[in-house]
Amino acid sequence: MKTSKIPHRFYLTEEQMPTQWYNLRADMKEQPDPMLNPATGKPAQVEDLYPVFCKKLAEQEMDASSRYVDIPEEVQEMYKIYRPSPLVRAYQLEKALETPAKIYYKFEGNNTSGSHKLNSAIAQAYYAKEEGLKGLTTETGAGQWGTALSEACAYFDIPLTVYMVKTSYEQKPFRKTIMETFDASVIPSPSMTTNAGKAILQTNPDTGGSLGCAISEAVEKAVTTEGYRYVLGSVLNLVLLHQSIIGLETKKAMEMLGEYPDVVIGCAGGGSNLGGLIAPFMQDKLIGKANPEIIAIEPASCPSFTRGKYAYDFCDTGKITPMAKMYTLGCSFIPSANHAGGLRYHGMSPILSKLYHDGYMMAKSVEQTRVFEAAGLFAKYETILPAPESAHAIRGAIDEALRCKETGEEKTILFGLTGTGYFDMTAYASYRDGTMTDSIPTDDDLQKGFMALPKI
Amino acid sequence: MKTSKIPHRFYLTEEQMPTQWYNLRADMKEQPDPMLNPATGKPAQVEDLYPVFCKKLAEQEMDASSRYVDIPEEVQEMYKIYRPSPLVRAYQLEKALETPAKIYYKFEGNNTSGSHKLNSAIAQAYYAKEEGLKGLTTETGAGQWGTALSEACAYFDIPLTVYMVKTSYEQKPFRKTIMETFDASVIPSPSMTTNAGKAILQTNPDTGGSLGCAISEAVEKAVTTEGYRYVLGSVLNLVLLHQSIIGLETKKAMEMLGEYPDVVIGCAGGGSNLGGLIAPFMQDKLIGKANPEIIAIEPASCPSFTRGKYAYDFCDTGKITPMAKMYTLGCSFIPSANHAGGLRYHGMSPILSKLYHDGYMMAKSVEQTRVFEAAGLFAKYETILPAPESAHAIRGAIDEALRCKETGEEKTILFGLTGTGYFDMTAYASYRDGTMTDSIPTDDDLQKGFMALPKI
Repeated sequence: MKTSKIPHRFYLTEEQMPTQWYNLRADMKEQPDPMLNPATGKPAQVEDLYPVFCKKLAEQEMDASSRYVDIPEEVQEMYKIYRPSPLVRAYQLEKALETPAKIYYKFEGNNTSGSHKLNSAIAQAYYAKEEGLKGLTTETGAGQWGTALSEACAYFDIPLTVYMVKTSYEQKPFRKTIMETFDASVIPSPSMTTNAGKAILQTNPDTGGSLGCAISEAVEKAVTTEGYRYVLGSVLNLVLLHQSIIGLETKKAMEMLGEYPDVVIGCAGGGSNLGGLIAPFMQDKLIGKANPEIIAIEPASCPSFTRGKYAYDFCDTGKITPMAKMYTLGCSFIPSANHAGGLRYHGMSPILSKLYHDGYMMAKSVEQTRVFEAAGLFAKYETILPAPESAHAIRGAIDEALRCKETGEEKTILFGLTGTGYFDMTAYASYRDGTMTDSIPTDDDLQKGFMALPKI
Repeated sequence: MKTSKIPHRFYLTEEQMPTQWYNLRADMKEQPDPMLNPATGKPAQVEDLYPVFCKKLAEQEMDASSRYVDIPEEVQEMYKIYRPSPLVRAYQLEKALETPAKIYYKFEGNNTSGSHKLNSAIAQAYYAKEEGLKGLTTETGAGQWGTALSEACAYFDIPLTVYMVKTSYEQKPFRKTIMETFDASVIPSPSMTTNAGKAILQTNPDTGGSLGCAISEAVEKAVTTEGYRYVLGSVLNLVLLHQSIIGLETKKAMEMLGEYPDVVIGCAGGGSNLGGLIAPFMQDKLIGKANPEIIAIEPASCPSFTRGKYAYDFCDTGKITPMAKMYTLGCSFIPSANHAGGLRYHGMSPILSKLYHDGYMMAKSVEQTRVFEAAGLFAKYETILPAPESAHAIRGAIDEALRCKETGEEKTILFGLTGTGYFDMTAYASYRDGTMTDSIPTDDDLQKGFMALPKI
């Protein structure tokens, strides 16, 4: 197919949508190190996870061998309300940049939750419903995951309690309202509803909270409430499994257009979008079928890939979760208060950490003012106001396209546009009025986090 | 094609997109009465409009005979960034309502402006650019039109000044930020930047403003600034022309699915969405090819169709625009302060007014608490948080589907989902916490407006 014939937005039909998720672990030559039970220091067994996670999800978390996993029909049905998502050729952005590169993006923001998070939220709410659970708990930072899970729980009729990082709760009251519109209970974290929250408030009564702290609270609430379990929207292997729908749709669409990316770029917080987008392209790399460059873009203010340690660490601040081997800044790390967007988790998906450690992918960090500059340019030419998180990937793609302009290379660049920025207007306003600043942790800052890593 | 095969979301391909707009007037047996020049009381000539509107748009406004109008290539190009929009089969809503009816909606909210307004904004910005104008002015109420026009002006690189109704400006600061992100200047109206604004502030210093007042200011600013013209996002014939893209896409998509609506439902403020959605279905009615029921849904707090007068009136509060024959509540009418959404204009599109007057369509009014109830139900099952404006049409469609449940009729219902409610969370919150109230103007209230109508 000739380039000129490639449409601006390309949609698969419903019949062409994937009916199975892809499990990247099945093709990894070396597996990520196992999670450790913090009580015993031994590899966690699936039974260790049952008190926290719903059974089916615990099994998916531990299953490294099933290459493809059937997507339940009920999940497929809800996917069809907003999927397939479009693969967009960024013609206008290419023109504005005067680049010889072709730029594609997979747009996951066309649903009310406003991001890709819904892909895993639906699966997790469905399995919880199937198991007959009475309710779920979770945490949310910027609010995208909480919104997505609220939508999925409303649809499947399961009560949900969301612990929302307090700074975010205060900065984004509308995020709370939208979750409540979908019937969720939203509690600012740290709170007095859990021992973990009380302990943190005792030490630091004025804290704005952190994702790690909200996770501690949500987990505690789940394990102490009859019939409740905890769900998490990133980092976990099971989340990457569900999010593979992004990459599978993208790859199929590109094949139909006669295209294949030279570079695949995703923003990276806990890894949910990045892991999903790159899954089938990483498979090509692992099995030697193709060799696309894969680049993670993370905030300079929360640089877990580029400046973190590859080590065992807790997934939460309260140290009640299993320990995972991952790139981490230490479980008590909190990005500087002027950090505006999400992507603020201290660690990184163990699967992606292993692949990065083994040289299958690269990572770059960018300052937020450069991120918002890219966001504004993108909005002007592609008429989508991106989420700050997604704008990290835009920055990466623009930088790559500008490099191509210098070298004359006609690369095919693919990036993930994970969501929209309608609830981030305060940050947009601060960028516009020049009050937004950058903050890069010093080596000393990071050292403190590394010192507190478990000695394993 | 069998029902079971109809996808949840159906997209035309780019090749199937309309390349011409449809002009409803060409098929009307009786034309709407002409606009009158307020200075002479005589029918306005196209030249009378040149000081206010860009030439091409003035010509489109007056052109009742061209049945189809080519969409300029540059406009088609920008349409393709977010169009075709999906035609959605509301399977989940049907199931929840236990209705034998089939419900379809055309979703126009999948772009950053969040509504169908972008369809006309792009056309108007393009023609302004083509004419070499130095800038544009406009007004905005709820903010959807202002956002859409800001996007279009950023894309075509034309300076834009937006007069935003003051209550809205104060209630929705993020709407201002998003317009500024697209480089527009946003001024709360009434303001001291125009004589019209000053006069209103002198009489009523505490006024929250109105659309009619913001129009006066924007028009004055345009005619007194070298190289500037004024643009309007609703009411006008030219807007209905551009918005016909909604109906044309919808009808083509339904034909491909083997469907035709028994009932077509749209929300009605100034008529931009309603006129666009119904255009080709109304054509069928006018030429005797089919006879779908066409229903406008308007707020009980701003009931221009159901309780207004069909009379000549000014389009603005300051009485500086031409007069149009339309259903109107009087140009000084302002909906009660507790009215949350848009759809607050005192008048109604002259084309739609004429068709309604001649019995080609029906109108119903609904209270806002019933509208938000419908919005919540829709969000839960279709996972899209609708704009309050759009939710009027949802209310109408749900009521129709529930009637079908009683009668057993298997009607095919089509409605327009014009946009998303991300910037309306304050209203959603007030509905949820029970503080939202309804307000229906008394006959006495309305009488005041009617008394002030021009004596023609």
